[in-house]
Amino acid sequence: MSQEPISWSHLLALASQWVERYRYRVESFPVLARVAPGWLQSQLPAAPPQHGEPPEAWFADLEQLILPAVTHWNHPGFLGYFGITGSAPGAAAELVSAALNVNGMLWKTCPALTELEQVVVSWYAQALGLPTSWFGMITDTASTSTLLALGAARERTLPGCRERGLQGGPRLRVYCSQEAHSSVDKAAMVLGIGRDNVVRLATDASFRLRVDALEEAIVEDRRRGFLPLAVVATVGTTSSTSVDPVPELADLCQAQGLWLHVDAAYAGSAAVAPEFRWALAGCERADSLVSNPHKWLLTPVDCSCLFTAHPEAFRAAYSLVPSYLTTDGGAAVDLMDYTFQLGRRFRALKLWFVFRAFGTSGLAQVIRRHVELARQFARWVEESEDFELLAPVPFSVVNFRWRHPRGGDEAARAEANRQLLQRVNAGGRVFLSHTTLAGRFALHLAVGNSETQGTHVRLAWEEVRAAAQALAVS
Amino acid sequence: MSQEPISWSHLLALASQWVERYRYRVESFPVLARVAPGWLQSQLPAAPPQHGEPPEAWFADLEQLILPAVTHWNHPGFLGYFGITGSAPGAAAELVSAALNVNGMLWKTCPALTELEQVVVSWYAQALGLPTSWFGMITDTASTSTLLALGAARERTLPGCRERGLQGGPRLRVYCSQEAHSSVDKAAMVLGIGRDNVVRLATDASFRLRVDALEEAIVEDRRRGFLPLAVVATVGTTSSTSVDPVPELADLCQAQGLWLHVDAAYAGSAAVAPEFRWALAGCERADSLVSNPHKWLLTPVDCSCLFTAHPEAFRAAYSLVPSYLTTDGGAAVDLMDYTFQLGRRFRALKLWFVFRAFGTSGLAQVIRRHVELARQFARWVEESEDFELLAPVPFSVVNFRWRHPRGGDEAARAEANRQLLQRVNAGGRVFLSHTTLAGRFALHLAVGNSETQGTHVRLAWEEVRAAAQALAVS
Repeated sequence: MSQEPISWSHLLALASQWVERYRYRVESFPVLARVAPGWLQSQLPAAPPQHGEPPEAWFADLEQLILPAVTHWNHPGFLGYFGITGSAPGAAAELVSAALNVNGMLWKTCPALTELEQVVVSWYAQALGLPTSWFGMITDTASTSTLLALGAARERTLPGCRERGLQGGPRLRVYCSQEAHSSVDKAAMVLGIGRDNVVRLATDASFRLRVDALEEAIVEDRRRGFLPLAVVATVGTTSSTSVDPVPELADLCQAQGLWLHVDAAYAGSAAVAPEFRWALAGCERADSLVSNPHKWLLTPVDCSCLFTAHPEAFRAAYSLVPSYLTTDGGAAVDLMDYTFQLGRRFRALKLWFVFRAFGTSGLAQVIRRHVELARQFARWVEESEDFELLAPVPFSVVNFRWRHPRGGDEAARAEANRQLLQRVNAGGRVFLSHTTLAGRFALHLAVGNSETQGTHVRLAWEEVRAAAQALAVS
Repeated sequence: MSQEPISWSHLLALASQWVERYRYRVESFPVLARVAPGWLQSQLPAAPPQHGEPPEAWFADLEQLILPAVTHWNHPGFLGYFGITGSAPGAAAELVSAALNVNGMLWKTCPALTELEQVVVSWYAQALGLPTSWFGMITDTASTSTLLALGAARERTLPGCRERGLQGGPRLRVYCSQEAHSSVDKAAMVLGIGRDNVVRLATDASFRLRVDALEEAIVEDRRRGFLPLAVVATVGTTSSTSVDPVPELADLCQAQGLWLHVDAAYAGSAAVAPEFRWALAGCERADSLVSNPHKWLLTPVDCSCLFTAHPEAFRAAYSLVPSYLTTDGGAAVDLMDYTFQLGRRFRALKLWFVFRAFGTSGLAQVIRRHVELARQFARWVEESEDFELLAPVPFSVVNFRWRHPRGGDEAARAEANRQLLQRVNAGGRVFLSHTTLAGRFALHLAVGNSETQGTHVRLAWEEVRAAAQALAVS
């Protein structure tokens, strides 16, 4: 009496065919979904089906209902946020992982999961030129990785605080630049440190954290009775992809006894190409570092790699072994000891397949090509009288804006660029996002998709100029 | 110039074939991997490959190196922890999800992800008889769900604490039973509440939280100046699957102004069969509830559903919109506002496929069959003179032990049962886990795999008795 109404073979064939057809057609869809909020919900039954339906019915709905409501991160014209990309090896590995369906909470609940994870994060560290002595693991997101790292720092600075709580304790401080990711704030909120105690420091003209401002803040905080805890440096900030001066920050953290966490979620992967190793200079002295293969290394979400020089600090912060999970102890690493999440998917498989499929040289080629495409776009901006760059372009992201022909103040420029962006994105052939840099509204173009070619970036430039022309005469 | 050395079609065919063959062979493997710690690591190259390799090479390694190090949660003789199970529909959906590779941080970054998630969590709530007015979302693990819920409770009780931090604030208290999951402790550790402030209360003889003990503890804590925050009730505790008296707890929480969070990670799904609806009685009055389709509802890990009657409390605790993610606002839900994790996989697809494939009646049949198998095993234990049950069997888990023939104290009995367990598991045909109940070492048998049939449970019983006989004469 099987409970499965359909065969694996039939269903995997259907899914594979659908996926191949989707990949083939992806450029035929508008990049951004064009549905109104609530459309999909209105199309689906409010109640669950009582009886099973044949797979042809679900795949038909996938095609007719889900697909129109998908924003196509796979579209080579997707050039917003950090463009991310999966790959066939990564997707195939996710299928294998879902079929094995193991939970790697303990070594013994799937030795392959724990050990392959150790091996591939070490490969990733080596590919980036990071210390091979570091301990690494895979988490779901950089948000979780940074939260875990700051939690480990908290316990190291206030031993026993995981037991006592923070009430009655000193006021901790976490430092980062104004350009650091919101996950630093969220980590401080969750950890009970408080967002008020995230000190966001001024940056230089290239959006890099100013070490002098940081040192001043630490000294002043100590004078006022705060307890400085950690510095979060960013390698590749979300808006401008600026790189904080990690070597100087490492000096300062060492002198001041602060934990140095590096958020290299996006740009870390660039270092797989030796000419971008400069971006991680000084990172070998960090206490922890996060970089996400699911951003720029052809690995499907989720795959965030968290490294640390101090695995014992993570165990001190998170290890807790209930009676139903005691093991015989011994040599094995139980990954549940390093995080608050007990369950663990077999994510290592997809990073392993990606390395096997592309090799470090193939991955480096992807990075190089993306950076070259972004720089080409930046040159067009620079050569144009109607547009200007708003930040340097160290990697594959370009921030720029239209110089609104009728001039006006910052608010008017922002509004003009907002209208331009809306027009470009409504066209459906490319998608750009936006950000704010030094108070200025910026159009944000990010190359990260493995299928994005010169033609797509050229098309983006044409669409941007056409939108500007249309708006200028309207 | 494609960066992908291999075609999607070829690779998905390889992966599908491997998966089908794996599923077919799964009973030919020992349930628990037999490798020594470090074996897999020693077999894999220490450094990443420089050049890509053909997929046949990675699949060969998957077969020869990974597979021997896998503990087979898919083996129908896997009867430890909470036996979990995936399914072909769930695995096919994971492939589709990995191929779409969207990130649903905002509604507009994939409307289908956000809206399908809202629909399927509502289907799940309806299938369990929970309020359809609740807001729901999918997280990675019950650990994360409980952490998020307690963080929302913290912010509701101490408005603004996410900004200020907990330093200088009152000492918060979280209550649960001695049998509650370790994720409650880990949440308190991470949130800065502190594990010392998790009050683990006595249970009755059936391992259910004693409401009188809870009320006493709350009153006493208030007298001593603590601030009671939340109660975590469990529906289906990890060791014995006991069900806390939620209706009475809801009364008490209402009277005392405490947040009631229900951990129904395992047993919640049982309520898809109407005869198990009793287990969720009173839960409609909870402030939040977590139940995991990836445990007992044929959905591959990760899929934990977190429900709440107070979505505004979650937004108050977690919403934070950086300039690079501002939207036009409006009617749409942006799921990043309800959690600390920004990135979000398209997990809703797999739960949707599972509902479409099985229907609520098909899912109820799976639950019924698993419970019936566990009760059959429990009857054998009860009818045997050599074994005894250590807890009631409301669902699909049996806790029992060997009455060691030579008597002795608790330590001697525990040691005898530990040896028995080791012997059974070394056989490789079934896998049981262990726990501690009222200070007694328990053998823990859990039915949860869709392929587990009567023959496998019978085999487990035979292996247990054979091990006892062998040990008795040794």
